[in-house]
Amino acid sequence: MENQIFEYIDKHRDYYLKWLTDFCRIPSVAAQNRGMQESVKYLEQLFDEAFNVYPEILATGGQPVVFSHLQGKEGTILSFYNHYDVQPEDPIELWKTPPFEPTVVGNKLVARGIADNKGNLIARMAAVHAIKKVTGELPIDIKFIFEGEEEIGSINLGTFAENYQEKIQADACIWEFGYKDGEGRIEVSLGVKGLLYVELFAKEANTDLHSANATIVNSPAWRLVKALNSLKDDQDRVLIPGFYDDITPLTDEDLEMLQRYSIEEKKLKEHLGIKQFVNDLTGEELKKKHIYEPTCNICGIHSGYTGEGSKTVLPSEAVAKIDFRLVPGQQPNKMLQLLRSHLDENGFTDIEIRTFGEEIAARTHPSEKIVGAVLETVEKYTKQSPNVVPNTPGTGPMYEICQKFGIPSVSFGVGNFTSYTHAPNENIEIEDFIDGIKMVASLIFTYGKVMAQQN
Amino acid sequence: MENQIFEYIDKHRDYYLKWLTDFCRIPSVAAQNRGMQESVKYLEQLFDEAFNVYPEILATGGQPVVFSHLQGKEGTILSFYNHYDVQPEDPIELWKTPPFEPTVVGNKLVARGIADNKGNLIARMAAVHAIKKVTGELPIDIKFIFEGEEEIGSINLGTFAENYQEKIQADACIWEFGYKDGEGRIEVSLGVKGLLYVELFAKEANTDLHSANATIVNSPAWRLVKALNSLKDDQDRVLIPGFYDDITPLTDEDLEMLQRYSIEEKKLKEHLGIKQFVNDLTGEELKKKHIYEPTCNICGIHSGYTGEGSKTVLPSEAVAKIDFRLVPGQQPNKMLQLLRSHLDENGFTDIEIRTFGEEIAARTHPSEKIVGAVLETVEKYTKQSPNVVPNTPGTGPMYEICQKFGIPSVSFGVGNFTSYTHAPNENIEIEDFIDGIKMVASLIFTYGKVMAQQN
Repeated sequence: MENQIFEYIDKHRDYYLKWLTDFCRIPSVAAQNRGMQESVKYLEQLFDEAFNVYPEILATGGQPVVFSHLQGKEGTILSFYNHYDVQPEDPIELWKTPPFEPTVVGNKLVARGIADNKGNLIARMAAVHAIKKVTGELPIDIKFIFEGEEEIGSINLGTFAENYQEKIQADACIWEFGYKDGEGRIEVSLGVKGLLYVELFAKEANTDLHSANATIVNSPAWRLVKALNSLKDDQDRVLIPGFYDDITPLTDEDLEMLQRYSIEEKKLKEHLGIKQFVNDLTGEELKKKHIYEPTCNICGIHSGYTGEGSKTVLPSEAVAKIDFRLVPGQQPNKMLQLLRSHLDENGFTDIEIRTFGEEIAARTHPSEKIVGAVLETVEKYTKQSPNVVPNTPGTGPMYEICQKFGIPSVSFGVGNFTSYTHAPNENIEIEDFIDGIKMVASLIFTYGKVMAQQN
Repeated sequence: MENQIFEYIDKHRDYYLKWLTDFCRIPSVAAQNRGMQESVKYLEQLFDEAFNVYPEILATGGQPVVFSHLQGKEGTILSFYNHYDVQPEDPIELWKTPPFEPTVVGNKLVARGIADNKGNLIARMAAVHAIKKVTGELPIDIKFIFEGEEEIGSINLGTFAENYQEKIQADACIWEFGYKDGEGRIEVSLGVKGLLYVELFAKEANTDLHSANATIVNSPAWRLVKALNSLKDDQDRVLIPGFYDDITPLTDEDLEMLQRYSIEEKKLKEHLGIKQFVNDLTGEELKKKHIYEPTCNICGIHSGYTGEGSKTVLPSEAVAKIDFRLVPGQQPNKMLQLLRSHLDENGFTDIEIRTFGEEIAARTHPSEKIVGAVLETVEKYTKQSPNVVPNTPGTGPMYEICQKFGIPSVSFGVGNFTSYTHAPNENIEIEDFIDGIKMVASLIFTYGKVMAQQN
């Protein structure tokens, strides 16, 4: 049966690639509210074409969730969480091909959002489509939950999940992302970090001024530099009092999992063109920091004149966008309070904090059946052990729609080591997309079997 | 005679205003090499129309200098230094009227460059034009020296002045700028500060990355924040070793001059919407810092995503534009070396310095004849004492084409307290422009008389 499905997928590769490229042509940038309705419309048509049903368009207060529940033979329910929004394409000048014109470059397909995560969204729909076409039915129930605000912090998904708790209930959830590592092994991720995304804003005079006035008029740019400087020391350690206090201590099991996970340091450094990692870390310490430690990162900073040449101006405003990646135990709203207190106590009461997103970290225990099913599927298909990571260093609303309701969640997908997610020239390998469709199809049967044995 | 000239100016006010508004329509932004040739062409036509001569267009290696020498009855030579370039109009969204469409708003005329310094350039040409029309001749020789790179640090003017030393020789020079203070008194400035304009540039990975990588990949934005932070303390004191060492000590005469100079503190704070000045300074200390102390100002800073909403990115580059205003004794090239050494000694060898401009500070002694002539002219016309400042807190290439060759230089002009130079909504008062033409005409006669008495 599996072989027939794989054959069907191979025969229809161009058909599924067209689903993907048509989808990637839509500039669905949630941060700028571009192409969102168009994306929803596209998914409606695709569900109709693939499964002969229209999905439910569920209101969230922001961009709607596209939802569909397809019935299977068994009572087991597997859900797929994905998102139809993408990151802004900025800085546009660094793209070698237009970000919203999917382009084949060698063995790759390049487009904004193709790795994160339109490639996975389409691969999963394609897998379910192929199973239905070949077998006429589904072995288990499938739910698709496609949100439209993942890249802006899933700001409405928590409330949505509370409101639609019954609809989203499942035995397990396959999460949105996934990549091959530097050795070509599939990474399987059992969790995500949390997030607090803020803007720090400084203002002084009511207008930009000739910079001769910098003698006597305070500079918001300098205020912001001083405030930022107070947040981290030279060893990348966050200086906000209490920032590390609530972190759930690592267990021996956590450290064992970390040992099995690997980072290809040399390849990664070469790929990124860097000489060393933060604090010159290597080996276990490097992995530990990457997976289990929080961050305080400057996503963007702006003040004054940043065009060509020189302009002698004293800016009236300065702003920095900061994301804190949080680990289990760290509550975003508490971290926000700690940040405010820290700034106040250091005399930065004038620095305004604007909050853009809060997400709670999540991990799935490796003993969960869905974890076993995914590992078995990937190992069987790729003929090598997957690279299992206790949680990725990235973020998603996994807690809000999975762990909070007792749903275990695992992530793997069609991206690769050099996919440039959130960056110019985002890409996937075309064969990884086809392999991804097959692995998802295979997983649906494997998970069905595992769950049937249990019942 | 003077009354007849003033009457002629009054009758031709719309004619001279048209010279000005036509000139301000040209977006002569040297930093972006926009509208420069057009400006030169406009000035050629204007010289032809006003004086029936074409000016000399003198090559500099960059934008040319527009030069003209008009013969007068006496051997005395008075030169006018002005510039035909303007600052970039950015941030465009804060302009209430289009920056390159001069617009009357109440009693003001609003346009980029109108205060700094197209209003003065045209007022001076108009004054000379009116004298010639009414008297048929000039009492003294007049030289116009109009450069096109003042707003980008007059990068070629030093070499130009060396090459054309004879051409630019004069008994005195009237400098390009000038403003009314908060009390409506004309400010007369006897000097300028120097300048060192640099970009600090930090780079790490070869591409922007998903900010999840901030755990292990160094951030150029953080590097830049830390490097900047090392440059200044919380009391606005520059921390670069040796920065203050070469400053020429203030004399009793300097401090006396400072006492006579005034800053309308309350009005200035209200106008700028600020609660206090740097370090809560007031009175003599405030004036002293404004006039006699150097600065280290952030003109601009940029890294990563600074658009709407949130983007979780680890930027690959960060840049800050910094201007140091220097005072007599501080050599820009030495300050640049000190900056490099400071960064190196603090571990910031990776921070690249790009130099955009260097200028040396200049002051004219108050005992010079041109100073007396200007003060007499302004006091007679405005019927109040001018607000004399030993040097303005701003910068210009005064040293390169005046003090270096023994030419005393004084500055006064048609701007005002709320002219917003280098900022959105730059403006002058229309009557100040007309008054400015008259004062320049009057000065030409007064200076001629003072010099004739000497000879």
